[in-house]
This record gives sequence, structure tokens and C-alpha cells, in this order.
Amino acid sequence: MSSANAPLSSRMSPRIVTVRERVLKQNDLLARDLRARFQAAGVRVISLVSSPGAGKTSLLERTLAILGQKRRVAALVGDLATENDALRLQRSGAPVKQITTGTVCHLDASMISTAVSDWSLAALDVMFIENVGNLVCPSSYDLGEAVRVVLLSATEGEDKPLKYPTIFNTADVAVITKIDLAAAAEFDREAAHSNIQTVRPGMRVMEVSARTGAGMDAWIAFLQEHS
Amino acid sequence: MSSANAPLSSRMSPRIVTVRERVLKQNDLLARDLRARFQAAGVRVISLVSSPGAGKTSLLERTLAILGQKRRVAALVGDLATENDALRLQRSGAPVKQITTGTVCHLDASMISTAVSDWSLAALDVMFIENVGNLVCPSSYDLGEAVRVVLLSATEGEDKPLKYPTIFNTADVAVITKIDLAAAAEFDREAAHSNIQTVRPGMRVMEVSARTGAGMDAWIAFLQEHS
Repeated sequence: MSSANAPLSSRMSPRIVTVRERVLKQNDLLARDLRARFQAAGVRVISLVSSPGAGKTSLLERTLAILGQKRRVAALVGDLATENDALRLQRSGAPVKQITTGTVCHLDASMISTAVSDWSLAALDVMFIENVGNLVCPSSYDLGEAVRVVLLSATEGEDKPLKYPTIFNTADVAVITKIDLAAAAEFDREAAHSNIQTVRPGMRVMEVSARTGAGMDAWIAFLQEHS
Repeated sequence: MSSANAPLSSRMSPRIVTVRERVLKQNDLLARDLRARFQAAGVRVISLVSSPGAGKTSLLERTLAILGQKRRVAALVGDLATENDALRLQRSGAPVKQITTGTVCHLDASMISTAVSDWSLAALDVMFIENVGNLVCPSSYDLGEAVRVVLLSATEGEDKPLKYPTIFNTADVAVITKIDLAAAAEFDREAAHSNIQTVRPGMRVMEVSARTGAGMDAWIAFLQEHS
């Protein structure tokens, strides 16, 4: 098995590796600037990463409605195509911008910088960034966020932390979503928690259902601690 | 809105675009060779793409067990990490190889070529390729397959075809999985089918549940037509 499991460096030309490293370094520098700007403006930036369809927008929709009563909230949402998520989230009344990436599988710091260029950051308490649905690409790109949250839905399988360890490693906290579907999906809660702890020992994990509201109190309390 | 929605070409340096185009061209040439080899050997190659957790492995597990009674079947499975999927699929008795990609978000033709290098292709009727769970990256990489199947689970939302149009455009057929969870997830079947047809008019769509077996007859019949 694993006959094709040669180290990546042996399959990528030195030139590609160099270009990729330069892109990542540029992103890191810009993300550091962004982080300093966010801090100076007193806005807490929280990003969400997950598979497509793990429920980032649904969680964010409910979060903006609840947290928006106590904090000045805003959101940036990334997708390859459509403005649907921004339209959904704008119903909360919070400032929301869609970033469409075309064929790019992640947001990067320059997209965030451009998106907030006409926003007064000092007028915000909490800004959410919803990344493109992808468990791979977003892990390499710092967006200047203070907290990165990785979502894992109860319907997508308990094995995802083991299969996508990097994204769990770059996140600060994990949220298991769609917990109302756990029984129907025969979700193995113990295995999911154990797999998360295997990849990232000590990681804080919350369970929520944006549909039923289960676990939302703890999630909102967590956000208030961090804003 | 869409303030960060500048054309990609304006955000990527000419050098990066050139390198990316060269990589894709090399892949296309190798994929063309692979396709000719598969055809000469009389093996039908069918690839599966989807989000993480849409149920590729579960569908494949059941498919190998059923189709394996009538055809000589084999599978390659791609993941960033772990050999779990290969171990699951090997229980069917079919030849199965895991390709672990490290940080790469898709399979490419060279990985397929290496993985089959010690297999006698003429001894196979159908070879499945399960790509890395990702709705973006795999769309650009031809693997030499005859048929590309995109999976969409009933639990991940009806909007995915609109948000990830390219992967639906590069696929030949769509399979809606986890259909047993449709009611629990309040899956809007009509919207899902309509969104698929918006992105790819005329696309053939099947609905299955690997857990209950619903729709498996039509799926197996489709595979037999194509092998």
C-alpha cells in the first residue's frame, strides 16, 4: 500500500516549492499587519473553517442574531461563487460582505484586507470570517484572526480529524455542528471527541445545533469571553 | 459587496499563473496516456469526487461488495492522511490501494500512474478512484478516468452545486447520497435537482443510501452499463 506515497517535495519542482513559499510568506506578513490593525481597533476577529455543508452559515446566522443584541458584529463570507451566504446573513442587520474567490479554494489575507478597506473597524466589537468550505487549503493561510474555529458536522463522520489533521491543528477550538442529527446519522460522539484529542490534545470542543438551538448558550458564552 | 472580488489573474503574479498552467498541462498529457492504457487494457475507470464526509467510501464499500460478484473490481483511495479507507475497502476482497497526499488537496495523474504500476490492468473490469474529499481542487485534475461521479449528500445542503459549479461541470453524473437522512435533514430534493440542472443542464442524477441500500440497484445498473 501507499506506493504513491512519495514525499511531496520529490513530486514538486523546486521552482513550484519556491513560488508557494513566497506566496505563503507574503500572506503571513500581511496577516500580521491585519492582526495588529484589528487589535488596535479593538475588534475581535473569529474565523470559521469546515467542509462544505458543515453548517458555517447557519451557525453564523443564529450567532449574529443573538450576539448582535449585545455586541457590534459583522461578517465576511467566502465562496467560490454566489452571494447567497451574504444575502442570508445580511437579514440579521449586521454589516456583511461576500468575497467570491472564483477557483481559489481558500481566503487569504489580501482578500480580507480589501474587503474591510471601507469599513470602520473601530465601530465593531466582533468580526466573523467564514472561509470557503474546504478542509485542506484554508489551513495554510493566516487571515489575521484572533481565534480560528473548526466545525465538524455530526453527519460527515467521526474520522475527519484524523484525515485532515492540519486544519484541526491550526484551529483553536472545535465545534461539532448539526448535533440534532446525531442519532439519525448514528454519530459516534466518543470517537469524534477522541479523534479530535488525538490530533490536538486538550482542544476545547463544543456541540451545537443551529436548528434547535442546542448548545448555543455555551457557544455564545465562549464568544463573549473572547470579545 | 464583493469588494474583494477582483479577477484572480490580477491577484496572482504572472509567474505563478505560468507555473500552474505548466503543472496542469503536464497532468493533462499524463492523464491522456493513462486513459489510453486503461482503454487498451479493457478496464473502465470511474472516479468519485465530493465534500469530505459525503459518503464516498461507504458507497464504494457497498459497490465493491455487489459489483464484485459480477465484475473484477479494484479501487484507489486518496486521503491527506491515514490508510483507514483502504483498510475498510480491502474487506471486500478487492485489490485496494491508499494514496496519501500529505498536504495536497487532490489526486493527480502521476499519483494514479504510480499507484497502478504494479497492477495488471488487463485483469480488471472496473477500477474506482476515490479522490480526496474536496469540492474545489480535484476539478482541475484529469485522472484518466472514463466517468467522473460527483456526490452530494442530503445532509450538506442543496446549494452546493451553485457554490461549487466547476466540480459539477467536470463531472459526468451526480449521485445524491445519504438519502435516508433526507427527512431528518429537511433536505429540499426539488431545490437540489434544480440547482444541479442550473449548473449542468441534462445531468443524470441518482439518489442512494449506502446504509439502507435505497437506490443501489439503479446505481449498480448504471455501473454495469459503463463496464
